Amino acid sequence: DCETHNGEGFDSPAVDALLTDLAKVNNSRDRANRLFQWLIHPVQDKSFFRDNWEKKPILIQRQNPDYYKGFFSTAEFDRILRKDNVQYGVNLDVTSYTDGKRETHNPPGRALPYTVWDFYESGCSLRMLNPQAFSSTVWQVLSILQEKFGSMAGANVYLTPAGTQGFAPHYDDIEAFILQLEGKKHWRLYNPRSKDEVLPLVSSPNFSQNEIGQPIMDVVLEAGDLLYFPRGFIHQGDCLPDAHSLHVTVSSFQRNSWGDLLLKLMPAALEIAMEEDVEFRKGLPLDYLQFMGVQNSEKEDPRRDKFIAHVEGLMKKLVSFAPVDAAVDQKARVFLHDCLPPVLSAEEKASSVYGAPARWGDGEALDVTVQLKGQTQIRLVRAGAARLCGDGETVSLFYTTENSRVYHKEESKSIEMKAEHIDAMEFLIHSYPKFISVASLPCETMEAKMSLAELLFEKGLIHTAE
Amino acid sequence: DCETHNGEGFDSPAVDALLTDLAKVNNSRDRANRLFQWLIHPVQDKSFFRDNWEKKPILIQRQNPDYYKGFFSTAEFDRILRKDNVQYGVNLDVTSYTDGKRETHNPPGRALPYTVWDFYESGCSLRMLNPQAFSSTVWQVLSILQEKFGSMAGANVYLTPAGTQGFAPHYDDIEAFILQLEGKKHWRLYNPRSKDEVLPLVSSPNFSQNEIGQPIMDVVLEAGDLLYFPRGFIHQGDCLPDAHSLHVTVSSFQRNSWGDLLLKLMPAALEIAMEEDVEFRKGLPLDYLQFMGVQNSEKEDPRRDKFIAHVEGLMKKLVSFAPVDAAVDQKARVFLHDCLPPVLSAEEKASSVYGAPARWGDGEALDVTVQLKGQTQIRLVRAGAARLCGDGETVSLFYTTENSRVYHKEESKSIEMKAEHIDAMEFLIHSYPKFISVASLPCETMEAKMSLAELLFEKGLIHTAE
Amino acid sequence: DCETHNGEGFDSPAVDALLTDLAKVNNSRDRANRLFQWLIHPVQDKSFFRDNWEKKPILIQRQNPDYYKGFFSTAEFDRILRKDNVQYGVNLDVTSYTDGKRETHNPPGRALPYTVWDFYESGCSLRMLNPQAFSSTVWQVLSILQEKFGSMAGANVYLTPAGTQGFAPHYDDIEAFILQLEGKKHWRLYNPRSKDEVLPLVSSPNFSQNEIGQPIMDVVLEAGDLLYFPRGFIHQGDCLPDAHSLHVTVSSFQRNSWGDLLLKLMPAALEIAMEEDVEFRKGLPLDYLQFMGVQNSEKEDPRRDKFIAHVEGLMKKLVSFAPVDAAVDQKARVFLHDCLPPVLSAEEKASSVYGAPARWGDGEALDVTVQLKGQTQIRLVRAGAARLCGDGETVSLFYTTENSRVYHKEESKSIEMKAEHIDAMEFLIHSYPKFISVASLPCETMEAKMSLAELLFEKGLIHTAE
Amino acid sequence: DCETHNGEGFDSPAVDALLTDLAKVNNSRDRANRLFQWLIHPVQDKSFFRDNWEKKPILIQRQNPDYYKGFFSTAEFDRILRKDNVQYGVNLDVTSYTDGKRETHNPPGRALPYTVWDFYESGCSLRMLNPQAFSSTVWQVLSILQEKFGSMAGANVYLTPAGTQGFAPHYDDIEAFILQLEGKKHWRLYNPRSKDEVLPLVSSPNFSQNEIGQPIMDVVLEAGDLLYFPRGFIHQGDCLPDAHSLHVTVSSFQRNSWGDLLLKLMPAALEIAMEEDVEFRKGLPLDYLQFMGVQNSEKEDPRRDKFIAHVEGLMKKLVSFAPVDAAVDQKARVFLHDCLPPVLSAEEKASSVYGAPARWGDGEALDVTVQLKGQTQIRLVRAGAARLCGDGETVSLFYTTENSRVYHKEESKSIEMKAEHIDAMEFLIHSYPKFISVASLPCETMEAKMSLAELLFEKGLIHTAE
Repeated sequence: DCETHNGEGFDSPAVDALLTDLAKVNNSRDRANRLFQWLIHPVQDKSFFRDNWEKKPILIQRQNPDYYKGFFSTAEFDRILRKDNVQYGVNLDVTSYTDGKRETHNPPGRALPYTVWDFYESGCSLRMLNPQAFSSTVWQVLSILQEKFGSMAGANVYLTPAGTQGFAPHYDDIEAFILQLEGKKHWRLYNPRSKDEVLPLVSSPNFSQNEIGQPIMDVVLEAGDLLYFPRGFIHQGDCLPDAHSLHVTVSSFQRNSWGDLLLKLMPAALEIAMEEDVEFRKGLPLDYLQFMGVQNSEKEDPRRDKFIAHVEGLMKKLVSFAPVDAAVDQKARVFLHDCLPPVLSAEEKASSVYGAPARWGDGEALDVTVQLKGQTQIRLVRAGAARLCGDGETVSLFYTTENSRVYHKEESKSIEMKAEHIDAMEFLIHSYPKFISVASLPCETMEAKMSLAELLFEKGLIHTAE
Repeated sequence: DCETHNGEGFDSPAVDALLTDLAKVNNSRDRANRLFQWLIHPVQDKSFFRDNWEKKPILIQRQNPDYYKGFFSTAEFDRILRKDNVQYGVNLDVTSYTDGKRETHNPPGRALPYTVWDFYESGCSLRMLNPQAFSSTVWQVLSILQEKFGSMAGANVYLTPAGTQGFAPHYDDIEAFILQLEGKKHWRLYNPRSKDEVLPLVSSPNFSQNEIGQPIMDVVLEAGDLLYFPRGFIHQGDCLPDAHSLHVTVSSFQRNSWGDLLLKLMPAALEIAMEEDVEFRKGLPLDYLQFMGVQNSEKEDPRRDKFIAHVEGLMKKLVSFAPVDAAVDQKARVFLHDCLPPVLSAEEKASSVYGAPARWGDGEALDVTVQLKGQTQIRLVRAGAARLCGDGETVSLFYTTENSRVYHKEESKSIEMKAEHIDAMEFLIHSYPKFISVASLPCETMEAKMSLAELLFEKGLIHTAE
Repeated sequence: DCETHNGEGFDSPAVDALLTDLAKVNNSRDRANRLFQWLIHPVQDKSFFRDNWEKKPILIQRQNPDYYKGFFSTAEFDRILRKDNVQYGVNLDVTSYTDGKRETHNPPGRALPYTVWDFYESGCSLRMLNPQAFSSTVWQVLSILQEKFGSMAGANVYLTPAGTQGFAPHYDDIEAFILQLEGKKHWRLYNPRSKDEVLPLVSSPNFSQNEIGQPIMDVVLEAGDLLYFPRGFIHQGDCLPDAHSLHVTVSSFQRNSWGDLLLKLMPAALEIAMEEDVEFRKGLPLDYLQFMGVQNSEKEDPRRDKFIAHVEGLMKKLVSFAPVDAAVDQKARVFLHDCLPPVLSAEEKASSVYGAPARWGDGEALDVTVQLKGQTQIRLVRAGAARLCGDGETVSLFYTTENSRVYHKEESKSIEMKAEHIDAMEFLIHSYPKFISVASLPCETMEAKMSLAELLFEKGLIHTAE
Repeated sequence: DCETHNGEGFDSPAVDALLTDLAKVNNSRDRANRLFQWLIHPVQDKSFFRDNWEKKPILIQRQNPDYYKGFFSTAEFDRILRKDNVQYGVNLDVTSYTDGKRETHNPPGRALPYTVWDFYESGCSLRMLNPQAFSSTVWQVLSILQEKFGSMAGANVYLTPAGTQGFAPHYDDIEAFILQLEGKKHWRLYNPRSKDEVLPLVSSPNFSQNEIGQPIMDVVLEAGDLLYFPRGFIHQGDCLPDAHSLHVTVSSFQRNSWGDLLLKLMPAALEIAMEEDVEFRKGLPLDYLQFMGVQNSEKEDPRRDKFIAHVEGLMKKLVSFAPVDAAVDQKARVFLHDCLPPVLSAEEKASSVYGAPARWGDGEALDVTVQLKGQTQIRLVRAGAARLCGDGETVSLFYTTENSRVYHKEESKSIEMKAEHIDAMEFLIHSYPKFISVASLPCETMEAKMSLAELLFEKGLIHTAE
C-alpha cells in the first residue's frame, strides 16, 4: 500500500528560476517551506507528513524531465573533477556490485577525469560525497532545506552506467529523497525486516538478495521524478541496459530522534536531581549486593522487590528535574555546527558587513565610518542563523555563518553573551523576519544597544534594511 | 540533639585477641557483623543504623584506654618509617593549621624518621594515608569491615602534637569513624550548612571559622573512645596543651548512593529502550527548535506543553527498560576492584592453593598431585571474595583475592565463565558458608565439575574442608 | 660598507607581462633564474651571490614605481578580505609598535574588511601571512623562485599606515627580499650583534632600541625598489608621515644550512658505523665512569687523554660511513613537501592529465581512450616536480604536484617505485627538459614502460609534446 | 681454542660467609673487585680481561658443588612462589623447546607453586626474571658487581627438568656468566656467524639447528662451575636424563659500547658546533639538489666531490666541539637509574639516617636532635652511590639509594646542586673511601657546609664514622 502520485506534466521553473524566486521570499522559514513544497510537488506538505514521513515510501512521477534542470548534471560532475581537488575516498567513491559482490575501487590521491571516466567506462558507479562543497546550487538548496528539517540536510550524487548496479541492497539511518536528474533507474524497495529495524539508529550492512524478502515497490524513476523512503526501508537501484542514471539523494534526520534528545537530557536530569534532592544522595542498603545483581536475579526475596520499587520511584522522580530546554539547546548546538552557512543574496551582502563600503583607494582606507545608528533597522540574516543557548552558567550565541561548506571543517562557532545583551538578543531573534531599530533593543543603555548591534554586524549575523 | 553513650569501663579484648576470636567465626558475613558490633560497642547495630548512620553524629566514651590496644600505635608508625618505603605526598602528609592558615609541608622523596620527627617536633601533624599497606592489623580489620559495608573501607592515621591543630574545618564525602588510639583530642562538630550539603557527593574546601556556625558537639575524645559522624558534618579537631593525639579514621560509603547507581542504570535503560521501543526512535518534530530551548523558555506556546509532556512520558516509560541487576553488577565490579584482598588464616592457607603441599626436595618436585576429587568439600574463601557479574553478552567472575593492599595497584581481576560453569558457580556462591562436594556442582559432566573446581582452586578462590 | 645600486628608470614589464614571458621559457630552471634576475635587476646574479647573499645587505633603487605592478596591491588586499575566509591570527595579524611597545590586536574569527580597515585607520599595521594562498600571482612567483633557491620560498605582505611602525627591531632566520609595492618606507639595518648571531638558526625576540647599536643602513624604500639582507641582520621599518607603505617580503633558506644537513647525516652515519664496524660495538672500559664525566673533568689522568683520543678517533672514522646522498634525500623530501604546487600554463594543462579530452556528453563518457603510445613524447612538468629518494630499503618518488597552496595542509606525497621502473624514472628525470618517447624508457618490457608512463600521467607529473 | 680451567676443589666459603667477609672491606670498589675475583676464581682478573672479556668463552670447572652454596636454590624458588606475588609473564616464564619448537606457556595471573610445579613436572623449564626483587642475596651480589662493571648487572634464574631443553639456540646482547647452582647441564657454544654478529647490539631470534654450524665448546656444567661467554656467541643448554639443573645467569654490558656513547655525544657536538661555528650555519649551495641525492649518485660531477669533501671537512671539525664529559654524564645518569640500591650493613644503617636514634616513646618524639656537627666525619655510603652530572646549565647529583629492586619502578632520582655546594660535593666524592669532617668541606660558610651535610644525611647518601 505505497502510494504513487502521477503528477501531470507541471510546467515547473528551472532550479535557477526557482532560487531567484525564493530569494524574494522575505522570511527564510517560508522560503524553506516553499522549497520543500517544490521538492514534493504536487503532493501537499500536510498529506506528506501525515502519510509518508517516517512511515512509508512515496513515488512522485512528473513526466517532466526538466523539473530539476540546473540542479546538477554530469557535465558539472566533469567540470568539478577538472577544477577542484576531488580526492578518492574523501569526496568520491568508485563502486561496483556484480554477482552479489559489492566492491570499492578507490585508488589513492586526487580524482582526475582521465581516470574517473576510465572507471566509469568499465562499469563502475561513481558517488560524489559532498557535492555542496563544489556546487553552489546544491549548497544553496541544502542550506534552505535545513531550515525546514531543523536537522542537517546532506546530499550524495550517484552516477551509474547503463546496465549496472553500484550498491548492494541495504537500509540507511536517514530520511531519503531521491531526485532523478538524468537518465533513469530501476528501484526496488522492501519493508524493514522486523520491528527492531523500523526507524533504525544505524545503517545496515550490505544484504544478500535472500535476506530481504519481496519488494513492496518496483519502479523506474525517470528524470524529473522523486522517490522518498524513510530510514529502515531496504532499497536497491540498478540501471536498465538502455540508459545511464544520475541522481542526487537528499538526506536528513540522522540521529534526530526523541531518544537522541533523552541522551542529552537524562544525564543532566540526574545531575540536577543529585544536587537538589537528598533522596538521590542517600546511601544504598549495606546488604544490597547480597540480593541484587545477576547472580541473585532468580532469587525470590522481598528485599529485591523493595529495592527495585525504590529505584523505579527515583527514576520517575527524575521527571521533575529534567532540564528539557537545556537539553534541546545541546541538540541545537550540534545542529548549528552541522549547518551549511547561508548563501547570501547580492542585496543581503550589500546590506551586511560583507558589502560594507569600506574600500581602499588613493593610498588610504575610504569610508571607514561606523554605519549603525540608533535608527538603523536590523534583523538576522536568516531565522536559523543564530541561536541563544544555555551553556552551564553562561548564555552563548551559536551561529552558522562562519561554518564551512565542508562538514565540520570549522569548529563550532559561538560568542558568550554579556548579561546586558541577552534580553536584546532574544528580542532580536524573536522579531525576525521584522526589521527593528537598534534603538528599540531592550538594553539599559544606548551604548549597550550599539555595542550589541556592532558585534552582530561585524560577525555578519545581521543585515540592515535598505 | 546528638547522642553520647557513656560506655562503662568494658573489659574489651585487645585487638589481637579480637581478631583471633573472629578467625573462628565460620561465616565471613557474621565475622563482619561482629567486628562492626565491637567497633560501636556498647551501642547496638540496630539502634545505630536507625538513629545515626547517615543521620547524625554519635560519641561513644568507653573509659577504657586499652580498647583499641594492638590496632595501631605511634611506635608502629616509627617502625613503618624505618622499614618501609614511605613517600611524602603519597603515603604521608605533613600539615599544619595555624592562625587560620592550612599548609602542607611535604618535601619530595622518602619519609625517613629523622626528618619526619623533626617536622613533628616543630608542631606539624602527620597523616599516614594508607596504613593498611604497612600494617597487617589495619589491613585485616578493613578487609573484614568492607563485607559489612558492601562498600570500600579505608583508613587514615593522624598523629598530632600537643597544643596544635593540623587541619582546617571541613566536611568529607564519606561516613567517618574516629578511633582514638592514644592521647586525646578536642573535637567540634557542626551541622551541614544547608540542605544541599546534607550527605554531599564531594568533600568541601577548607572553611574559615566564620563560615561554619556554632558547634553541635564539643567533646574531648580519649583513648578507647569512638566518634562517628555522617558525610557533610563539618568537623575540626585540635590537641589540648597536655597531650598528643593518635587516631585512625575508618571511612566508607564514598559515592555509594542511589544516585550513583542511577548513573550506571540510566544510560543502560535508555540504550535498551532505544533498541526495543520505536517510540524512542521516532523523529523529533521538524519545528521543535522554534519553540523549545532556552531562548524560547518564557514563551507561552501549547506546542511547548505538548513537547514537554511527551518527553516526560518517555522518561516514565524508561522504568520498564531499566536493567537494575546489570547496573548493580557494574557497581559490584567497582567494589570488588576497590576491595582489600582477604587475610587468610593459617587453616585457610593450608586448605587452599597457598598451602598445597607441592614442594621441592631432593632435586625434584614432590607431591605434585591434583588433590581435588569428586568427594572433596569446597567453599569460597570469603562470602564476598568472588561474584558473578553480567558483562554485556558474557558472564564473568570478578574476585578480590589478587587485589593489592595498595589501592588499585592491580587491575580489576576477572575470569570469563564458560556457559557450562555458570550455574555451578552460582550454586557454589549461594552455598556459602556451607561446604559442598565437587560432585554436587550442577554441571552436566564430571569433567566440567572438576575443571571448575580446579580453576577456582588454582586462583585461590576456594578452600577445602580439612 | 653596504652597497646601494641606483638602478636607472628601467623600463620593466609589468609582472603579468613578465610571467607571460617566463611561461615561454622551456626549462623551469632557466625560468627560475630569469625570474630571480628580474628580482635583483640590474644587479647581476654572479655579483649578488659573490658579494651579498648570506654576507651583507643591498639596496636597489629603481626610480620605477611600476616595476612590481601587478604583483600585489592594497586593492587586492581588500578584495581578498571580501572574497576569502581570512582568519585573524592564522592569515592576518594586526600589530602596533608604539613608544617601544609591540602589541598584537587580533580578535578571534574571520577578518572582514569592515573591522580590518577600522584597525588600520587607528594606526595598526596589517600582516597577511600567506598571500600565496589567496593571490595566484604571488603563488606563481614563489613557485618559480623555489626552484632557484632549492629551498622553500615564502612571503608575507605588510601594510602600514603613514607615520606608524608596526614591529619592533629584530632579526629573522631567513634570507629576506623586501619588495616595495606602494608608498614608501623608512628602513634601518644593523649588523648582527655578535659572531654567534651571524646567520642565526632562529629568529630573535623583539629588541629595545638600546640593544642594537647604530644602523649600518638608513634608507627610504620607494615603490619599485628592492632591499635584501641576510638572516641575522637586525631591521626596523617605519612609515614617514606623508605616505603609507605596502611591501611584500620574500623569504627563503630557513634551516637550510650545512649543519641542518649534518643533523640528518650524523645519526645515519653512526647507525651504519655501528652495524659495520665492530670498533663501535666494543664495550667501554669498565672503569671509565671513575675518570670521565663532569665531576672528573679537572682531574689530571692519563686515562682521560686516552679515552678522549679514542673517542676522537672513532668520530673521525665516522666520515667513512657517512651516507651523504641519503641525507640529502632526507632534506629533499622535506623540501618537496614544503614546495608550492606548480602553476601550469594552459598548454601544459592541455598536454597533461588535467586537459585529457575525456569529457561527458550525450549521456556517456566520450573519448575515454588511453592516449599514451610508445612514440608519445613525454617529460616532467617541472624539473623539480618529482624526485627519486632512497627511503630505507625502498626507493620512492616524491612529488610536489598534489601539495596545497596552504603550507603542509596536505601530507607529503610519494609513490613507492617498483624495481623495474627505477632506472627509467631516473632517466626521465635527467632527460628534462628534453622530451623523450615512452618507448625509449630503459625498462625491460614495453608493458613496464607503458605502466610507468600511465602512472606518471595519471598523477599529473608528466605532460606530452603537442 | 676456548680455554678451560680446571680449578681444583678450592675450599670456598659459602656465599653467606663471603658476603660477611666482603662487608668488612672498607672501599666498595675493592669489594666489587673481590667479589668478581671470587666469581672467576681461580682465573685472574688480568688474564680474564686480556683473553676472554668480549673475546671468547671460558669454562671454569671447580669440582666443588658447594661453591655457590647460599646464593640461590630450588627450595628458595619454592619459598618465593609461596610468599611473594610472582606473576606469570612478568616475573616468571614457563617455556619448552621440543622437536625444534620453542613455546611459552604462561597463563595469566599469579604463579602459585601448585600450578608452577605442575608445569615443571610435565617437562617445562622455568625462568625467574628478576630474582633480585625476591632474594636479598641475589640483590646484594648484583649491587656489588655493578660497581665492578660500571654497567647494570642483571640476573635470571633457570630451572630445567632432567632430560629436557627449555630454549632454542640463540645469542644475547649481554656478557653472560652462567653459575651452575644445582644439578648439571650440557652446554654447546658456537662462534658468531659473521663479522656483523660479533658483539651485537641486539639479541638474535631463535635459530634452527642448521643455521648455527658446529659447536666450539661442548661441555657439561656441574654445580659450582662457571661458564662465561661474550655477547654474540650462540648457545644452547639441555639437561641430561639423570639430573635437573638450576643455574643463574649474571649479565652486564647491555648497550654499553663506544657507539652507544657516541649516540649521546654526536648530537651534542653538532649542537655546539652549530652554535659556535658559523661554518655550520652557512647555507647549502642553491643547486645542491641537482647533483646530490640518490638519483644523482652515479653521476660524474666535480660538484659532487666538492660537496662531499666539504661535508667530510665539517664532520672532522666536529671533533673539536665534542663534549665528551657531558656525554659520559648522560650515560652515567642512565646507569645510576639502572642500578640496584645498595644493601647497607647493620653498621652502615646505624651510622646513617636509617639508624638515626630519633624514636617514639612515652607520647613524644625522643632525641630529635641534629647530630651532624663540624667535627663529624662523613663519607658516601658507596663509591658509586652518587654522582655529579652536568645537566644543561645546572649541575645535579644523581643517586642510587632510592632506586627500587624492581627495574625502573622508581623514576631517576637527583637533586639540583646549589652553586655553593658543588665544589664540596666533588671533594666529598673524590675523598671516598676516606671519611672527612663536615668542617673540611670546601664551602665558603659553615652554614653551607652544614646544609650540604644535612641534605646528604637526610637522603641517606652519607654515613658517619661511628
